[in-house]
Amino acid sequence: MPNQIDKLNGVFAALSDPTRRDVVKRLTKGPASVSVLAEPYEMALPSFVQHLQVLEESGLITSSKSGRVRTCRIVTQQLREAEAWIAQQREIWEGRLDRLEEHLKNMKTQENKDGGH
Amino acid sequence: MPNQIDKLNGVFAALSDPTRRDVVKRLTKGPASVSVLAEPYEMALPSFVQHLQVLEESGLITSSKSGRVRTCRIVTQQLREAEAWIAQQREIWEGRLDRLEEHLKNMKTQENKDGGH
Repeated sequence: MPNQIDKLNGVFAALSDPTRRDVVKRLTKGPASVSVLAEPYEMALPSFVQHLQVLEESGLITSSKSGRVRTCRIVTQQLREAEAWIAQQREIWEGRLDRLEEHLKNMKTQENKDGGH
Repeated sequence: MPNQIDKLNGVFAALSDPTRRDVVKRLTKGPASVSVLAEPYEMALPSFVQHLQVLEESGLITSSKSGRVRTCRIVTQQLREAEAWIAQQREIWEGRLDRLEEHLKNMKTQENKDGGH
């Protein structure tokens, strides 16, 4: 089992490709077969299937086969983990900036008060 | 100027490496010099500097030089864009699941009503 660090590596690497992001986006509208998914892209099917494999290994999608048709669907768990990681960093930094702004405002108010004496 | 697709490629690729994610995380606590940032990692400085270059090219960090010291700081714009992209896909899919659940619940209620006749 890959640990959380390996998972984030895989999810972000999977999302770094525009075709793979497009597939994720299209799958948010519902499950779809490999052939339907492959249709809009000008690439050989084996190349496209490799993109799907990267997505599946990252945990962003899952697939199941019924007869000769393989259907892919989105799984949101890894999207949530990646989103949470980014949000956490952003919030820590923005929180720091907010506190700095507050501090500067207080300093200014204090200076005005002192100047008024 | 890279367009938004290229930017997302760069941001997600930058975040797919654990050292680079760690640097972003550490920079949320405040700006830091390259030498301070490099310290915890067991890698040659040129390799580490390459990681910083990837982060800077992706727009996740910026750096400025004063004398012989280069200081890096985080920029949240690209984090926000990446977070928004992920959140959008997740919300579309989860919204779909919610509506499906609601639909199934209604069907069940209707069936119970019909059964009671």
